Amino acid sequence: MSKDKLTIGAILFPEYDLLDVNGPLRMFGALENVNILMISQHGDKIKSGSKIGNYTEYNFGNCPEFDILFVPGGMGTRKEVNNPVLLEFIKNQIPKVKYVLIVCTGAGLVAKTGLLDGKKATTNKLAWQWVTSQGPNVLWKKKARWVVDGKIYTSAGGMDMALGFISDVYGRKVANDVALKTEYDWHTDPNWDPFGEKI
Amino acid sequence: MSKDKLTIGAILFPEYDLLDVNGPLRMFGALENVNILMISQHGDKIKSGSKIGNYTEYNFGNCPEFDILFVPGGMGTRKEVNNPVLLEFIKNQIPKVKYVLIVCTGAGLVAKTGLLDGKKATTNKLAWQWVTSQGPNVLWKKKARWVVDGKIYTSAGGMDMALGFISDVYGRKVANDVALKTEYDWHTDPNWDPFGEKI
Repeated sequence: MSKDKLTIGAILFPEYDLLDVNGPLRMFGALENVNILMISQHGDKIKSGSKIGNYTEYNFGNCPEFDILFVPGGMGTRKEVNNPVLLEFIKNQIPKVKYVLIVCTGAGLVAKTGLLDGKKATTNKLAWQWVTSQGPNVLWKKKARWVVDGKIYTSAGGMDMALGFISDVYGRKVANDVALKTEYDWHTDPNWDPFGEKI
Repeated sequence: MSKDKLTIGAILFPEYDLLDVNGPLRMFGALENVNILMISQHGDKIKSGSKIGNYTEYNFGNCPEFDILFVPGGMGTRKEVNNPVLLEFIKNQIPKVKYVLIVCTGAGLVAKTGLLDGKKATTNKLAWQWVTSQGPNVLWKKKARWVVDGKIYTSAGGMDMALGFISDVYGRKVANDVALKTEYDWHTDPNWDPFGEKI
């Protein structure tokens, strides 16, 4: 098991997906050696697509450095792909961080920066058309729960990916313990994807 | 499908479980005819057991009436069972609401009010001993993902229960649509519970 203390920088924006953020971060929150920073453009409360939301403590200007860039999806991505401030922030972080974890339609945001070009990736299946159109040079994989390409993880199921990442970095036993503690039925196979078969 | 507009009152407290709150509420947030009120004792930002958290907009004094009382679990329940203000609020709401939805160790809080006495209920399996000790006269069911007794739903898996409730009230098609939209692998059988077999 890695002894490294890792800091996650989670990027929130208006109309993010509530589960994309809180599901995976609950998994990481179970680990003592992981610290989570909640970051948004203005560092305030952010309303998800479900009308309720999380609070963030840092803005793009004052957030400390972090090891893992975490980008969720949500309906708000359709607007945020046209937000140069957010895209610039994401683009600047990617070369600096150790890992990039992307949930669902968050892949549309990262694809738009061009930094997914030539890399294998996946995303939400219902939003497939829109997300893939943001990055025509990305090597999109339709049937996958999550995909790893170097330091970049993309996913259709954020909680499954989070546990997969925890397993890769901290070992399978740690990931199994988190799944047991949260009573979450982890799909351990990244290629399990009944949703990808439906479209 | 019910045409009724239903309002959920979700009760947050320090060190609530992040997934207990945001998983089920993401399912409800997908429904146009459901409104969610985020409520806490002081109506402020609340830090979950994962150190990050949600914001609430109402306190126990100024929250409007609601139809569904929603009580999550989390490590904070161990302290909150000794908070007479919270217990009183919950106790006063239960006779007034149409439904009560309880996730995980939230059952310990409700059991402590005495209003689960004589009712069938379940809870988190790792915290089984502590929760059940809060309500020795509750008819605890060990192997269950969720349990329904009249208007009271208790659960080990909050998202599965939320979809079960949506199915009961709005119909199976609506619940299936929400599971598809969130790409959540819904366990449709309330008796499915591999975690209950482990203890």
